[in-house]
Amino acid sequence: MLTRVKSAVANFMGGMMAGGSNGDHPGGSDLPLKYPYSRPEFLGLSPDEVECSADHIARPILILKETKRLPWSTGYAEVINAGKSTLNEDQACCEVLVVKRRPPGTSTPNRTPMTRRRSSLPNGEGLGLRENLQDTSEDLTFHYWALFDGHAGSGAAVMASHLLHHHIALHLQEVMEILCTPSLVPPTCLGEEPINHHLTPTSQRALTRAASLRGAAGAPGSPSTPPTRFFTEKKVSHESLVIGAIENAFKDMDVQIEKEKAVYNISGGCTALVVIYLLGKLYVGNAGDSRAIIIRAGEVIPVSTEFTPESERQRLQFLAYMQPHLLGNEFTHLEFPRRVQRKEVGKRMLYRDFTMSGWAYKTIEDDDLKFPLIYGEGKKARVLATIGVTRGLGDHNLKVHDSNIYIKPFLSCCPEVRVYQLGQCEHGADDVLVLGTDGLWDVLSNQEVTEAVTCFLANCDPDDQHRYTMAAQDLVMRARGVLKDRGWRITNDRLGSGDDISVYIIPLMYGNKQN
Amino acid sequence: MLTRVKSAVANFMGGMMAGGSNGDHPGGSDLPLKYPYSRPEFLGLSPDEVECSADHIARPILILKETKRLPWSTGYAEVINAGKSTLNEDQACCEVLVVKRRPPGTSTPNRTPMTRRRSSLPNGEGLGLRENLQDTSEDLTFHYWALFDGHAGSGAAVMASHLLHHHIALHLQEVMEILCTPSLVPPTCLGEEPINHHLTPTSQRALTRAASLRGAAGAPGSPSTPPTRFFTEKKVSHESLVIGAIENAFKDMDVQIEKEKAVYNISGGCTALVVIYLLGKLYVGNAGDSRAIIIRAGEVIPVSTEFTPESERQRLQFLAYMQPHLLGNEFTHLEFPRRVQRKEVGKRMLYRDFTMSGWAYKTIEDDDLKFPLIYGEGKKARVLATIGVTRGLGDHNLKVHDSNIYIKPFLSCCPEVRVYQLGQCEHGADDVLVLGTDGLWDVLSNQEVTEAVTCFLANCDPDDQHRYTMAAQDLVMRARGVLKDRGWRITNDRLGSGDDISVYIIPLMYGNKQN
Repeated sequence: MLTRVKSAVANFMGGMMAGGSNGDHPGGSDLPLKYPYSRPEFLGLSPDEVECSADHIARPILILKETKRLPWSTGYAEVINAGKSTLNEDQACCEVLVVKRRPPGTSTPNRTPMTRRRSSLPNGEGLGLRENLQDTSEDLTFHYWALFDGHAGSGAAVMASHLLHHHIALHLQEVMEILCTPSLVPPTCLGEEPINHHLTPTSQRALTRAASLRGAAGAPGSPSTPPTRFFTEKKVSHESLVIGAIENAFKDMDVQIEKEKAVYNISGGCTALVVIYLLGKLYVGNAGDSRAIIIRAGEVIPVSTEFTPESERQRLQFLAYMQPHLLGNEFTHLEFPRRVQRKEVGKRMLYRDFTMSGWAYKTIEDDDLKFPLIYGEGKKARVLATIGVTRGLGDHNLKVHDSNIYIKPFLSCCPEVRVYQLGQCEHGADDVLVLGTDGLWDVLSNQEVTEAVTCFLANCDPDDQHRYTMAAQDLVMRARGVLKDRGWRITNDRLGSGDDISVYIIPLMYGNKQN
Repeated sequence: MLTRVKSAVANFMGGMMAGGSNGDHPGGSDLPLKYPYSRPEFLGLSPDEVECSADHIARPILILKETKRLPWSTGYAEVINAGKSTLNEDQACCEVLVVKRRPPGTSTPNRTPMTRRRSSLPNGEGLGLRENLQDTSEDLTFHYWALFDGHAGSGAAVMASHLLHHHIALHLQEVMEILCTPSLVPPTCLGEEPINHHLTPTSQRALTRAASLRGAAGAPGSPSTPPTRFFTEKKVSHESLVIGAIENAFKDMDVQIEKEKAVYNISGGCTALVVIYLLGKLYVGNAGDSRAIIIRAGEVIPVSTEFTPESERQRLQFLAYMQPHLLGNEFTHLEFPRRVQRKEVGKRMLYRDFTMSGWAYKTIEDDDLKFPLIYGEGKKARVLATIGVTRGLGDHNLKVHDSNIYIKPFLSCCPEVRVYQLGQCEHGADDVLVLGTDGLWDVLSNQEVTEAVTCFLANCDPDDQHRYTMAAQDLVMRARGVLKDRGWRITNDRLGSGDDISVYIIPLMYGNKQN
């Protein structure tokens, strides 16, 4: 994803276990790592195995061992890149988390969410039965799958893989009493009675608790002043509280990376694709160019959008237009089909401004000779000639090579969150959610992935819990290809992906069973 | 669409033929009108008829007379509001325009497009035959339908209905030689040879002409320096040149209104919905809350999106966040479900920031007591407590009531342009494009409109060219309703629309015939 910074960052490596190359401290950092580089915890690899996995020539495909189990029998496989970075900069995390009620009296937020991990990791004991998941009726359980694709170092991806779910848990904890009471309309202001709603005794209790959740004025049980009711009030759904929780968790994760860079070596940045299963719904949050699709009865349902310089061109141009100092007098917010040359000043050339989706001609002026904010096409498109992805975590110190122009203001850490009503549809054993980093999707289309997975699963024993991992391995193999004389090749002699590739295949029938 | 400004603007009316009330010169303007108020030219009404049409009690439905014909036998009907403004602030325009090649030597743009009107207006002679439309092979003909919905006066809507198509023609003229040569890839820079393309003699000629179109350095026929070819170059389609032309025409129209306000009385602002038929494709450009749908074989195909405070919330919040001075210390860019009260400071309340589509709780601070930038739901949603639509033309002087806060920076004059490949699909006599101002869509859903039109047309003589106007009249009737004791009522005793209502019904089979 990085070009101009590459030369500055791609060289020094203290050793396999260091934080990887980074744009923050070219030549290495004196700060300690917060988390050492490794592969996903659920793979259960030994340090030796981790080291072997980083063979850029053999590119071994790592899969979940048969003795390890992820929730819902999720399948997973990954492979390292063909040499573009020493370490595999993809990371993954999968957990089942139980959010506990905050003990009475702890009314202000703190950094330690009241969660317990209920995942099968690392002892391989399976999950998936309702009675095991909810310890008491007052707990809130959610399933979590995540992929992070790092660039300019593995630090941000490693950190996010350890911590993002805790931020999500923390934000869900704030609203869990509302979420656990389906009949309760989220109160506009905590500490007030809800409007337009007949309360059951249960929801009344939940509300009283909710009112006291976060330092609201009225103590639990105390009478709250009835608010004035002559103005209209927007109703907010439970679903949008979960979306808001995920959005703010991404923001908090990004702020934490920024803050802790002062004391730890946290290199680079990363995209983040997370899936949360909560109360019968799947929430897919995406910030970056990874992708999630659902395959249902052999049909594709896209459930995420990629954020790239091309897909976010107008947002980025708008920002640059409004805050031109961010371009440091080196770039122009206008887009041209190619670089403008000095001899073309005075001629008319195609351009696009932030308000336009079409193209028109303008007379070229001196200012148009600056490098365009967005430049290049497809996988080669870059923001500020530097980065090929426009949302994600980290990158706080990333600058245009040999300049003082920061990239970060143009990157957004905010995910798009989409909701799939898992509980509202029956799913068979071959209906799955596929998550992949761009290494997969760069070489395989949605349709090719769908055909491969559908065909693979049809030929497996339906009772084999390992079939989803085998299908993930098959996908990674199809995207990586095989090493021939002239590089990695896939079907029809197309080029295989030289990028890191990570794939989850999550069967959806388990979601039905839990409702 | 206006609330807080209403009191300031809704009173003074110099007379039926004046420019209407306006937010620019409360109490009237001393400046002359550029165009007098009237009804659409194609209705062919006498001044007396125009005056009679403004009866807010009877609300007569005006339709295209049988002796008048619009291109493609387009149907049209309209009705005035129930009293919210003295004049009907909707306007409409329909034309067939022939763009002529700019004479050699006129290489710089000027304000007078080389167009000739080829419409049937006002003499009622029908159009629709290819041989009549294209006078020479070097002309470019396009069909044009437009609806403008004014607010705070009719001035901007009247002006746009007279001029927007000329701006579009002007921009199309700039690229007509490219558009007229299907095999020609639009050159990145005029005056250069195209890349990756085998030129036919025709396209080579067209290119040479295109190169000289707009003051390019090389004179026609002179050898142009071959550009350096070692960088990649984005290819731009003909379609995106038309989209760019429409986008920039809206911008120019808005600038013209702003400039001419210095010398003319041009009151208020207006939405704009335009449809252009050009070279086998329909281009639907929309800036505001009017709507276009296609009905094909009884099925709805939406072809526009409405731009309202709710649909554009994140864009507006983002702008306010980046340029907080635009809020004049009176407004907050955050959204809350209702006004925050002083006694709620310190409590936790639901909010949304520009990055969020979900909701979360935040602790209320003093700053949150400011009025929200976006406030209200559905038709009552407002930007800066003033306006209910977020794109359109005009409104340059519109301010928040009793303040110096301008609304215009938050309004965009840029349309979203969508393309319908008319030529790629066969259309029957009952397949139509329906355009309506919000007066129609506020009370009738896409489905209701589709059922009404489909049913109405099925019961008409297919050879009756007046059937589309009768169907438009039927729609306006269904949306206005009938006057009962308690106001205007439609089916199931629902409230009819008290707004101005304007409707086109455009049969699509004529598009096929022309290809």
